[in-house]
Amino acid sequence: MPWSRLSGSISSPKMDVAIDMGNPFLNLTLDGFLKIGTVAATRSAAEDTYHMLKRGNVSGHNFEQMLKKMCKEGAYWGTTAGLYVGTEYGVERIRGTRDWKNAMIGGAVTGAVLSAVGDNKKDRIVIDAITGAAIATAAEFINYLT
Amino acid sequence: MPWSRLSGSISSPKMDVAIDMGNPFLNLTLDGFLKIGTVAATRSAAEDTYHMLKRGNVSGHNFEQMLKKMCKEGAYWGTTAGLYVGTEYGVERIRGTRDWKNAMIGGAVTGAVLSAVGDNKKDRIVIDAITGAAIATAAEFINYLT
Repeated sequence: MPWSRLSGSISSPKMDVAIDMGNPFLNLTLDGFLKIGTVAATRSAAEDTYHMLKRGNVSGHNFEQMLKKMCKEGAYWGTTAGLYVGTEYGVERIRGTRDWKNAMIGGAVTGAVLSAVGDNKKDRIVIDAITGAAIATAAEFINYLT
Repeated sequence: MPWSRLSGSISSPKMDVAIDMGNPFLNLTLDGFLKIGTVAATRSAAEDTYHMLKRGNVSGHNFEQMLKKMCKEGAYWGTTAGLYVGTEYGVERIRGTRDWKNAMIGGAVTGAVLSAVGDNKKDRIVIDAITGAAIATAAEFINYLT
């Protein structure tokens, strides 16, 4: 079955998650959501840990807030990444080629969708689409450099 | 001469620039600066063009401002990219391996340096370093996905 493969895996020394959605599009999107969501949750945790260390006290209340923030940031970054990866994959299938233009289109769509969901005006959505396209293109270029 | 190679090239239908700094570290940094600077300048131009089309008038004054903004944004994004690419290359040389941790360290250094240059307080610099690390790690993961 060429259409089913293992994906959505997070590899850490202690944990390995594998979920198969049975479709490469969904697998990629889920993979993006999980991986980037984890990165964002880790970032949020690191930031809060720094603040706690600086204040010098760790209370249960802080910890609860920290967990909530981790979930919120993880879900947001994860959605962004899933949307971007899914769109880029879709664009690649439609265009039939792999180049930086896929990243540009994926970034533009992601920027526009997230901006529209965030209840922004038409102007702001267009600017966010342009910015999303630029960031995705820049990341793609850096990727070729290193 | 293994240490000299052509780099810093921007390929477009009409333009091809090649500058050799005689050192792979400097070449990569310059390459990052030029490529990402171009992306940022294009983004800035696209944004301003949209605003102009919407207002329906194009004046010389706007055009001058647009050029200035393009240079400013291009230089800022270019510096960020050059710093990141240079740091990642340096980390790769020191660690002797290529993995996502290089991106994480590169992102953290870039975030911290740019934040320190921007005259931020110590707290803000640490948070920016964490955020930079998270963004670079996320970009590296997305890169493996697609």
